[in-house]
Amino acid sequence: MKIITGLQAMSKFSFEQKRKGNKIGFVPTMGALHGGHLSLIRSARKDNDLVVVSVFVNPTQFGPKEDLKTYPRVFLKDATLCREEEVDVLFSPSAQDMYPKGFKTYLNVEDLSEKLCGSFRPGHFKGVATVVVKLFNIVKPDNAYFGMKDAQQFLIIKRLAFDLNFPVKIHVCPTIREKDGLAMSSRNRYLSPALRRQALVLPKSLQLAKRLIHLGERSPKKIIGRMRRIICTAKDSRLDYISVTDLDNLEPLKKIKDEALVALAVWIGRTRLIDNCILRLKD
Amino acid sequence: MKIITGLQAMSKFSFEQKRKGNKIGFVPTMGALHGGHLSLIRSARKDNDLVVVSVFVNPTQFGPKEDLKTYPRVFLKDATLCREEEVDVLFSPSAQDMYPKGFKTYLNVEDLSEKLCGSFRPGHFKGVATVVVKLFNIVKPDNAYFGMKDAQQFLIIKRLAFDLNFPVKIHVCPTIREKDGLAMSSRNRYLSPALRRQALVLPKSLQLAKRLIHLGERSPKKIIGRMRRIICTAKDSRLDYISVTDLDNLEPLKKIKDEALVALAVWIGRTRLIDNCILRLKD
Repeated sequence: MKIITGLQAMSKFSFEQKRKGNKIGFVPTMGALHGGHLSLIRSARKDNDLVVVSVFVNPTQFGPKEDLKTYPRVFLKDATLCREEEVDVLFSPSAQDMYPKGFKTYLNVEDLSEKLCGSFRPGHFKGVATVVVKLFNIVKPDNAYFGMKDAQQFLIIKRLAFDLNFPVKIHVCPTIREKDGLAMSSRNRYLSPALRRQALVLPKSLQLAKRLIHLGERSPKKIIGRMRRIICTAKDSRLDYISVTDLDNLEPLKKIKDEALVALAVWIGRTRLIDNCILRLKD
Repeated sequence: MKIITGLQAMSKFSFEQKRKGNKIGFVPTMGALHGGHLSLIRSARKDNDLVVVSVFVNPTQFGPKEDLKTYPRVFLKDATLCREEEVDVLFSPSAQDMYPKGFKTYLNVEDLSEKLCGSFRPGHFKGVATVVVKLFNIVKPDNAYFGMKDAQQFLIIKRLAFDLNFPVKIHVCPTIREKDGLAMSSRNRYLSPALRRQALVLPKSLQLAKRLIHLGERSPKKIIGRMRRIICTAKDSRLDYISVTDLDNLEPLKKIKDEALVALAVWIGRTRLIDNCILRLKD
């Protein structure tokens, strides 16, 4: 496995691979790799000649009071995992190279970026969209892989790739969960064992939503109310939002017809967790 | 010469050319081609294996009260000129294909986009930046060519290509002028003969600025004052701005040291004209 840190070196490597007709699969990450990332890497491995994984803790997607400084950085462990998954290139640029002095250009995917997490983390998706475009231009992937746990992020990236005519196919892979149901996340390691147990209110509330749909409930308001009661049972929880929305444009729904996204963000102690699932009437 | 209107067809053509190792030179235009455009095409012709010219009147860079509807559209004449210049591909997409329903993604180059013309045409450079990124992704040029008459546009595009790591080299070519000094522009054809004569106050005021620098004047305020008096001699003129700025960041200068950009926008009747020149102490 090649480890590349320079932007030019990465760009040149990809350019040469494309010239040879090799298909590049790309998994952008902030490191602290877990089973969710590994499932993305495996999907990329299956569809492409080469797999590039980036590890870059992107400063522009963190708010001033967020966890940029404490975000887990375990590069050697990440590199070992990538090597085991037969990743071809681990691309790990520096923040200084990615955002040199005088950087001024940002992407905005209107509407989608302001909803759900966007209203609690202003500027977050602007940072995500901007770094993804940069990485696409440097890595030049044919296929890029994102996790459904970050459903809003996936929708925004799919939208921007389409709107801006990026020659990249955007794939989404299912959320990977721990045995007890908690969605895998690099931030789970912030949780003490006691808080880790409380965090189960997230998947439990989603499971309840699915059960209610099966029982014939069609009102987002009622479903959200019931979910909220589960969240409240965790004494260190604080709800940012629970939202039942259209799957494409993230507009809140008044009534569930065919399918809907139910997404939530909850603080467990000082850790903000997100999760979601798709509700389908025919499941 | 190939005429391509489909986005997919253009993208595929460029992809195949790149696979063959051919260098693509790109001249994005809104059509109504004049000597300025032709000079860009000739530069592209010299440096590249293939030349692609786009003709697309980009709706997102026009304000609601601007001249989108009346902007000159003379496609057959443009195509003839391109053929004469041995352009390989004339790419002319439709607005519907470029901005399909649900389009949400925009670029913003902060600071640079708000200055000079940006403060009189809010959203203009957001539209320019967005369409240029789209065209870069579709045409996949190695080199792209822009005119110095649109100095601010050039600086913004250079900045965004650098910031977002587009693998495109951005070139700027000198302003091409009519014999009497008026900078060539597709909008010049809006001018009646009488207004056409009045429009000469733009190049004349820039020539005065150069003369003043040669005579030792270093104060932007004084230079702008003298230029303004020339503009006022045209009875149908209305000044948007005259600005003496830093060449890179477009910040207004208090004093001219080595070099400066002097840029102006003036309405002559109902036609808004822009022009600029670089002031160099050592010229």
